[in-house]
Formats: sequence, C-alpha cells, structure tokens
Amino acid sequence: MLSTTERTRLRRGKHKGRTDRSELYALLDEGLVCHLGVVVGGSPMVVPTAYGRVDDTLYLHGSTGARSLRTDGEVCVTVTLLDGLVLARSAFHHSANHRSAMVYGRPRVVEDEEERMSALRAITDQVVPGRWEEVRAPTAKEMAATRVLALSLAEASVKVRTGPPGDDDEDHELPVWAGVLPVRQVFGEPEPDPGLAPGIGVPASVRGCRSPR
Amino acid sequence: MLSTTERTRLRRGKHKGRTDRSELYALLDEGLVCHLGVVVGGSPMVVPTAYGRVDDTLYLHGSTGARSLRTDGEVCVTVTLLDGLVLARSAFHHSANHRSAMVYGRPRVVEDEEERMSALRAITDQVVPGRWEEVRAPTAKEMAATRVLALSLAEASVKVRTGPPGDDDEDHELPVWAGVLPVRQVFGEPEPDPGLAPGIGVPASVRGCRSPR
Repeated sequence: MLSTTERTRLRRGKHKGRTDRSELYALLDEGLVCHLGVVVGGSPMVVPTAYGRVDDTLYLHGSTGARSLRTDGEVCVTVTLLDGLVLARSAFHHSANHRSAMVYGRPRVVEDEEERMSALRAITDQVVPGRWEEVRAPTAKEMAATRVLALSLAEASVKVRTGPPGDDDEDHELPVWAGVLPVRQVFGEPEPDPGLAPGIGVPASVRGCRSPR
Repeated sequence: MLSTTERTRLRRGKHKGRTDRSELYALLDEGLVCHLGVVVGGSPMVVPTAYGRVDDTLYLHGSTGARSLRTDGEVCVTVTLLDGLVLARSAFHHSANHRSAMVYGRPRVVEDEEERMSALRAITDQVVPGRWEEVRAPTAKEMAATRVLALSLAEASVKVRTGPPGDDDEDHELPVWAGVLPVRQVFGEPEPDPGLAPGIGVPASVRGCRSPR
C-alpha cells in the first residue's frame, strides 16, 4: 500500500488515486523517461532523465557535474504515461487519459561500488531489458565521472485517468463528436550504427523491446 | 534568438544546445504534455499538464484549487519529445535522442477574460488543432473555476540530441550491436463516447491529428 503524506494526498480528482504499490511499480517499470524536479537557488528546475527501479528504490544517474544531481535537498520525480486524448463535447471537460507517478524524497548519493553498478544495470535495463549483459561494462574512469542517486519509493502517489469524457448531462444532446483518441509510444525499426562491423545482427534485447507500450 | 541566462546556460553537452527561437516554437507546438515544476513549502513538485502557446507566451490552466497553479514564485516548464533510444557498445554511452525545452519564469495569473478565453483556446487546439471551434465554449461558471497562467518564453533553453551512439574509438571493435531504436508517439483509432448520438461522425480535427509525431 502507498501511505498518504501531506505531499501525496490528492486534493482533487481523488477517484483517480491509486494506493496499491504494485500499480506504482508497474507504471515505473513501463516508463522510459522521468522528469526530475529539484530546487536550485530557490527556483525549480525540471530535467528529463533516465531511471531504473530496484525493489523500493528508484535510481537516477548522470555526470558528476550535473546541477540537477548535486542537490542535497528534496526532489520530486514524476513519470507520466499518456494513454489518450479525452475529447469532450465541452471545452471544459477535455482531459487526458494517463497514468502518472510522483515520488518525493531526499535522495541518497550512492557510494558503494556494488550498489552503484547494480543501479546502472537497472537504468540500462529499464530502457532495453537485457541490454546490460550485452555491452561493455563501465570502466573505473567512467564510474568516477558518474553520480548515482537513490530515491526511496516510500513517499509516492499514483494517479490514473481512464475511460470516456465526463460531459455534463445537458451537453449530451449537443451535435458534437466526443470520445477518446488513443495515444501510444511505439518503436520503429532499429537503425544500425554507421560504423557497425558487418555480421553483427540486432540482438534479442532490442528485438524484444516492448512495443506497443 | 534565445538569450542565455544563468539558468539557461548549458554547462554540459553544449553542442546539443539550440539558440534559434523557431526551434523552441516548433518543439513546443509538437508536444502534448509539459511537466510543470513549482516549489511548495520548499520542496519541488512536478506535475504533468496541458499547455498552449500564443506567440511568446506559454499558457497553463487548471482548477483554481490546484496547488501547482497557486504558486506566486518561479516555475520551470519542461517539454520533452523522445525520438529514439541510443544503444551504444558501452553502457556508459547509452543515451536518448530527444528534443527538450525548459522555460523559466514567474507566471502571471491571467485576469482579462478575453485573454483567458484565448489561452483556453490555445490549450485545447494544442492537443487537437481546430477542436475549439467544434465544442461548447466554457460557461461563466466554468471560467470562474479555472485558473489561467501566462509564462513568458523570454527565458528558455532548447536541447537536442540526434544521431548514432558516441562510442569511444577503441570500442568500435567490440562484437556488440549498436544503433538507434526510434521511438515515436502515434494515435490509434478514435473511440467514440458510449453515449454518442447516432450519425455524429469523427470530425476533421480528430481525423487530421498529426500522426506520427
């Protein structure tokens, strides 16, 4: 179960809230990109970045020079999956079917080399499951240039909207088309690197990429 | 041209920066969702939401009760378009082809009713161009329940990554497939509202939706 805090309590659209931790995991596992929010000099900064999950921990990584990872304060990580445009008869009831997770907390800089490596594996495999095993692992120099943050999933909320538009009763008589236009993310054909040596085929990991998502 | 401020100056990946204002406009016009970052009680909060652009102004809207719109401080609005997964021979050089815009500023609460209406039109037409003309316009009561924020595009940065992976020279000999797995957002078949009156066909706006994006 997801417990409620002052930050994760839904004020509006309460019926969209989900409290089952498995829904949080499923949503995070499906996403490719999160938006990391930090406060820098009193102002918010929102950066798209990769992430990975191991049990109840979300991992982020980046250059040791990245401002977004140098914060020692609270962060908010949001993952949004857009499922459809909700087109109502009234402008007011237009909406979007979506699943979104917000995770709040103060991330920990991961120092243990083993945990750092597992985190990078999780981040790599988040995008293409199984990819880590196929590629060259990070060198000591690369590891030294990389910052890894761990964010507990203890304080998180999940919001889901599904279904048709919620038009007012009196608007149902309007001669206006209403419904949902589904949206999904799909993968195209893999484009080999121009310098790829002959005879190296597309690996199982890439062929097996979840699509449509 | 996009001018550089302390917040929009790219520290790393400078070659990914774009300074042409038309690139900012094109990117914003293509997106469906932004991530709005605000500071609430000292902590960041990142919320996915719709938006619209009119010239050099980005408009946001929501319930008058929404915490994310009640801020009187700085915000950061980020729009991210994911174009491909960049799969290198080394874990370290994995990346994502993407276009992202970050807009910083202190939004203005829009009070003028005419500007409020134009903003809502822009937000509706952002998602499905031409939709506004087809639907019932907001009533006075709906307008009273809606907050509209205007954010100047004066302080913004654009970052773009394209092309194949950037593996180190010595890694090119590794027997590892490398390349780009394209990602795009597509629309499915429109799903009519269950209560739709017979004889109302899918309108031009919905049929004409930009796809693939």
